[in-house]
Amino acid sequence: MAISSASAGALLRHVRTGRARSRADLVALTGASRNTVSARVDQLIAANLLEEGGRGWSTGGRPPTILRFNSRAGCVLAVDLGATSVDVAVTDLSAQILATDGHRIDIAEGPVAVLAEADRLAQKVLAEAGLAPADVCAVGVGVPGPVEFSTGRPSHPPIMPGWHDYPIPSAFGRYGCPVYVDNDVNVMALGEMGIAGSMQDVLVVKVGTGIGCGVIVDGQVYRGAQGSAGDIGHIYVAQPDGRTVVCRCGNENCLEAIAGGGALLRDAVAAGMPVSTVREVVERAAHGDGQALELVRNAGRTIGTVLAALVNFFNPHRIVLTGGVAQAGVPLIAGIREAVYRRAMPLAARSLEITVSDAPDLSGRLGAALMAIEGFLAEDAVDQAVSR
Amino acid sequence: MAISSASAGALLRHVRTGRARSRADLVALTGASRNTVSARVDQLIAANLLEEGGRGWSTGGRPPTILRFNSRAGCVLAVDLGATSVDVAVTDLSAQILATDGHRIDIAEGPVAVLAEADRLAQKVLAEAGLAPADVCAVGVGVPGPVEFSTGRPSHPPIMPGWHDYPIPSAFGRYGCPVYVDNDVNVMALGEMGIAGSMQDVLVVKVGTGIGCGVIVDGQVYRGAQGSAGDIGHIYVAQPDGRTVVCRCGNENCLEAIAGGGALLRDAVAAGMPVSTVREVVERAAHGDGQALELVRNAGRTIGTVLAALVNFFNPHRIVLTGGVAQAGVPLIAGIREAVYRRAMPLAARSLEITVSDAPDLSGRLGAALMAIEGFLAEDAVDQAVSR
Repeated sequence: MAISSASAGALLRHVRTGRARSRADLVALTGASRNTVSARVDQLIAANLLEEGGRGWSTGGRPPTILRFNSRAGCVLAVDLGATSVDVAVTDLSAQILATDGHRIDIAEGPVAVLAEADRLAQKVLAEAGLAPADVCAVGVGVPGPVEFSTGRPSHPPIMPGWHDYPIPSAFGRYGCPVYVDNDVNVMALGEMGIAGSMQDVLVVKVGTGIGCGVIVDGQVYRGAQGSAGDIGHIYVAQPDGRTVVCRCGNENCLEAIAGGGALLRDAVAAGMPVSTVREVVERAAHGDGQALELVRNAGRTIGTVLAALVNFFNPHRIVLTGGVAQAGVPLIAGIREAVYRRAMPLAARSLEITVSDAPDLSGRLGAALMAIEGFLAEDAVDQAVSR
Repeated sequence: MAISSASAGALLRHVRTGRARSRADLVALTGASRNTVSARVDQLIAANLLEEGGRGWSTGGRPPTILRFNSRAGCVLAVDLGATSVDVAVTDLSAQILATDGHRIDIAEGPVAVLAEADRLAQKVLAEAGLAPADVCAVGVGVPGPVEFSTGRPSHPPIMPGWHDYPIPSAFGRYGCPVYVDNDVNVMALGEMGIAGSMQDVLVVKVGTGIGCGVIVDGQVYRGAQGSAGDIGHIYVAQPDGRTVVCRCGNENCLEAIAGGGALLRDAVAAGMPVSTVREVVERAAHGDGQALELVRNAGRTIGTVLAALVNFFNPHRIVLTGGVAQAGVPLIAGIREAVYRRAMPLAARSLEITVSDAPDLSGRLGAALMAIEGFLAEDAVDQAVSR
């Protein structure tokens, strides 16, 4: 076993993840001196992050005192902003939801109005959980567009008019704590990993109005050089019939212009289907309407062509589908599987799991909570907090 | 600054990478007790991996004794197997080449004959460097096909008949040390990173007879779920003219069937060019032959179409081109850049560097040496070695 760091943050992580249950475990795990470990554990107890209680089994000598992570040492706010909804939850430090509420909004109303609504919901759920603003240790926010992660400012978000460069963290200034903002797909990917508790390489593909992808390497969000990794909605897709579709980005034949929710609605209307929203197309497919089924399955085939290339390149353990169109379930996944198994290398495709999210409505909030908790309990942050 | 592990392996890494130059630095860096650090440093000195000498500047009190990594504590063998060549080098533990030699072979002669030749070269370079088999701490081997990294056995390698499942490490049993085997593209990617000394997200794309890609995440080789990450040669590419090309894998329109070296030669011959090898086509392009230039540039455009998708998905800092066809230089890279800048998202393409390898002949050996050194000096391995 590798001997690992003995910082306060590292010791806390060992207890949180169940690798250590006592000071003796921590000494064995880190190779640090008993004095060093004890001093840091005392700091963590003083900071209310660890608690002592009960006695474990002795392996000779005095039975060790059990250490526990105090997941109620504080709480985090999780804000899931969508194009037409805002959901807010307050969770404890193990991402257990204590209270949650949501509201319909229009993201195009702009940051001031929408974030005021988010803050109103935050105060409501905090009160419901019997907590005060001072209990909030961190805030996590997912937004439906690209974000500069280091500053929490949206960067030319196509469906969020008025939000470009808006300092989202400033809207949560009343809590006097760090605010982490990322795009909804990365946040949902974290949420999916949280639910699955996995350390694998995973793609979380959101098929909604647009198409995006959260890239998970070894259980962590992979962002790339400029933080734009996973931006698969504008990958070029050749059409078998030579058809050209102009995307809202100005380019031709982008994946989402052919197989996103907007494209699905456009094609359904063009085929004479009496629908006015993507949701209606998806519901028709879910109820077995032949025409809707074929449209959804075709979208799946197109998405699968792109995913087949990414499977060869990235060789993931799993692909999880989420977003409004993923609610269509079987026909979408069947189209995707058909294309992936036909075009990906057998070695990479053999044990690849392709599934629809179990909790699509929850993963945004859960991921935002996990992002906030990971920020608050990052080893450096804990080291600084306890040595103040 | 994050406080980090105080294992012997971690202490050695701090000294190797220049982060620490004395016991006092190591205490400050790890937070471990002075006694713990001193005991482990003594073990590392006893194992001949660290040496003490000279005195540093004092910042008050006794000036500290300087610690140095002893990169001549041992050597590693680096074996670079190609389809038609084997190159072997012996390097010290900082990947400095002490002696090297190569020979033309045909990989299809099979593992016994080819590895016997590799071993003969290994003994020759060891003797040339004045070293004995007992000095070899690890062996690194790059092979032109897929390998199960954990066992060092090729897995159905298409251009290596007779090599499937052959235990390559057994051929180096005489050295009584770990043998690490990986595919040539991953090994070359490590070599490129070694030369650049970078911790970035990088794609190293080999355009030879086939096309493959080494994926580097944060300075480390990324392998994926089954170790097949980077296998981009069989990604489907639609042809603008609707043409269908059957690949040697049996599928249609794989990237390498359209734009690899084999395809380049096929198209050159079909166009009436008096050539019989890819190298001749590449040389003609390098000398300004219009027809050859256009073929190479077209191959670049096709490769660029796939890379544009991967740039959106992976958002790398750099793409490095290597392999025989990359020797064509400007026309290939111009075709690739044209397609990438036309089809990748501006944010991801903006500061992306696309370059040809500076040392394509060396990166295989250097990468194999770095793989062996990283294995030998992995923190766990050092911890075990010094506590024996």
